[in-house]
Amino acid sequence: MTEARPAGKQNVRVDYDDLLSFVAAVFIDRGMQVDRARMAATALCYSDLVGQGTHGLANLTGLYLPLFDDARVDPGAEPQVLADRGAAVLVDAHRALGLWAASEAMDMAVERAATYGIGMISVRAATHFGCAGHHAVRAVRRGMVGIVASNCGRQRIVRPPGGQVTMLGTNPLSVAAPAGGHHPFVLDMSTTAVPAGRVREAARAGRQAPHGWLADDRGDPVTDPAAFDRGDAHLLWLGSGSGSGAYKGFGLGLMVEVLAALVSGAGLGPSREALAGDGASSGRDDDIGFLVAAIAPGALRPAEDVDRDAHALFDTLLACPPSRGNGPVLYPGWHEAERAHYNRRDGVPLAEPLYQELCDVAGTLGLEFPDPIGGD
Amino acid sequence: MTEARPAGKQNVRVDYDDLLSFVAAVFIDRGMQVDRARMAATALCYSDLVGQGTHGLANLTGLYLPLFDDARVDPGAEPQVLADRGAAVLVDAHRALGLWAASEAMDMAVERAATYGIGMISVRAATHFGCAGHHAVRAVRRGMVGIVASNCGRQRIVRPPGGQVTMLGTNPLSVAAPAGGHHPFVLDMSTTAVPAGRVREAARAGRQAPHGWLADDRGDPVTDPAAFDRGDAHLLWLGSGSGSGAYKGFGLGLMVEVLAALVSGAGLGPSREALAGDGASSGRDDDIGFLVAAIAPGALRPAEDVDRDAHALFDTLLACPPSRGNGPVLYPGWHEAERAHYNRRDGVPLAEPLYQELCDVAGTLGLEFPDPIGGD
Repeated sequence: MTEARPAGKQNVRVDYDDLLSFVAAVFIDRGMQVDRARMAATALCYSDLVGQGTHGLANLTGLYLPLFDDARVDPGAEPQVLADRGAAVLVDAHRALGLWAASEAMDMAVERAATYGIGMISVRAATHFGCAGHHAVRAVRRGMVGIVASNCGRQRIVRPPGGQVTMLGTNPLSVAAPAGGHHPFVLDMSTTAVPAGRVREAARAGRQAPHGWLADDRGDPVTDPAAFDRGDAHLLWLGSGSGSGAYKGFGLGLMVEVLAALVSGAGLGPSREALAGDGASSGRDDDIGFLVAAIAPGALRPAEDVDRDAHALFDTLLACPPSRGNGPVLYPGWHEAERAHYNRRDGVPLAEPLYQELCDVAGTLGLEFPDPIGGD
Repeated sequence: MTEARPAGKQNVRVDYDDLLSFVAAVFIDRGMQVDRARMAATALCYSDLVGQGTHGLANLTGLYLPLFDDARVDPGAEPQVLADRGAAVLVDAHRALGLWAASEAMDMAVERAATYGIGMISVRAATHFGCAGHHAVRAVRRGMVGIVASNCGRQRIVRPPGGQVTMLGTNPLSVAAPAGGHHPFVLDMSTTAVPAGRVREAARAGRQAPHGWLADDRGDPVTDPAAFDRGDAHLLWLGSGSGSGAYKGFGLGLMVEVLAALVSGAGLGPSREALAGDGASSGRDDDIGFLVAAIAPGALRPAEDVDRDAHALFDTLLACPPSRGNGPVLYPGWHEAERAHYNRRDGVPLAEPLYQELCDVAGTLGLEFPDPIGGD
């Protein structure tokens, strides 16, 4: 109920299960089956639950609902297996919502990996899946390693090093693994220095962009994040800001393009159309390609040995003494799992404007948005 | 013949096939079978052929011969299949020379991928394989994507961000793919900003280390590359030099540790032993783990479609107009293939001291080192 929201607080906290039910109801309203809507809602709320807001509920009105409204997502799509080699499967998603389809693909990959030791689902004609890490970490519940990569369809955001024209998306990659009783390892990264959303977030907050994020046409650093959307600065690859490694981030972006889109036959960023344009960010993020894979170490050696080794690996990292002035040593995924734990207990924090936006969505659809349970 | 080498030139060129035969003869002398020695020699000479000298013939006397002499490599080892799930196989290399064993594993992965769409060979108890890219690109001849990752056994070179103790190796990763008639795409990278060899090379040449390579205990940049081996500077992860991304390079290093060593059960960098030491670089690079995988897009969709899409992808990148002051846009692997082409024709360039070193090896073993065919 919109009226109940407390004024003057930066964040509003909403019960996680209530939030899930609300988002699922929105997807059901758009025509999705109940169980699929619930899986998609879990994927979307994951970002806010773990504190990676740039890929979460803020995208409901900004990205996902318009995709339904423009028929770029088909709520009733039945993904189709085009080829099945046992360990590897090619799927045409037929524009199913990526938030659901990527989790479904991971569950299939896990099932295949249990038999073959490895399972790979290669998906074309897909749509946005939100946080790659959410789908990758599903494999961990079964003691497996999960791998998820996605290109951005035909969307072009980033230039090759030394190039004048955008050619590739920010091409996310995630790898998740069991950590022997500790929070799972979840690497979840764009192959650029930062995702475009982080640049826009800095622009909105009036913060400067650190060196290594953006450069101008001459390759000089740009610290005004608003220059990116003005077309006066381009996004750099991971490592591009340092005296080396420009080629590595670009290579990782291309690696994802190959694994996610060349294998599946999805839309590619680099196309003749890219060369015909004005070189600025363009191309639609339709016909996205995913690589979704699971590796089952327990199918190759005793599961208790895998668990022992995973514990040794991550327990030792956590025990690494910090250098002067630093907090404890952690690994990717640790903070996110910790935040998820507290946010499940205390409510998921939503920025005030986002809370209002979701109340408005609820109002439009005749749904109720959950009452806040606290704020900070 | 040592006498024939021209004096006063920086590089000596030696016929590629003669060089291969010489290196194979050295490995045969150490007890390897002829065909295996030849495969290992091809892997070692690849680095010099494509111009990545830090992983090539310079390591023959510095790394590989001592490994044989200390029985850390077993020239007669028969790798043993411990588990076989069809698409995924676990192999104990029993200290076989990695230069050979990794290529052998890739050929097995390719064979499995032809049937299952994907093939993964997980290897433990392995030894150094040289350039990851050489083994990865073997899959490309069969129209497949090749993936190779290796940890550094129990060797510890790099610290976690904010940590005081070294925990992981430079953990290389390579992905190779067909480029539709153009030179293959070959990403071949350490997950650190640069491999340790590049730092030592800069120290020998009296060059400064660019920002982003090294830092001191307070995290401040260090530009004296010699500080690394003095223990006054530590190597940074890919992206660590910029205002973001420190965690991404570390995450990629951990990803390789998981894929190469946790899956296979090989030696791990992070161990209780690491915590007991003085925090400096230590631990032996024995019991190395490899992940060697092939993906066969042609097992999932028509090979001619894959070829067409690969051509579109890489042809468009090569046609990308360069920004002001830059040369043509290229992709990882292009330069290496181009150099290999000319070095096969004109001879492989060897630095004068390396040439002398190899002549000395030949003399010791009663072999003949090839006459130079030119220099520059």
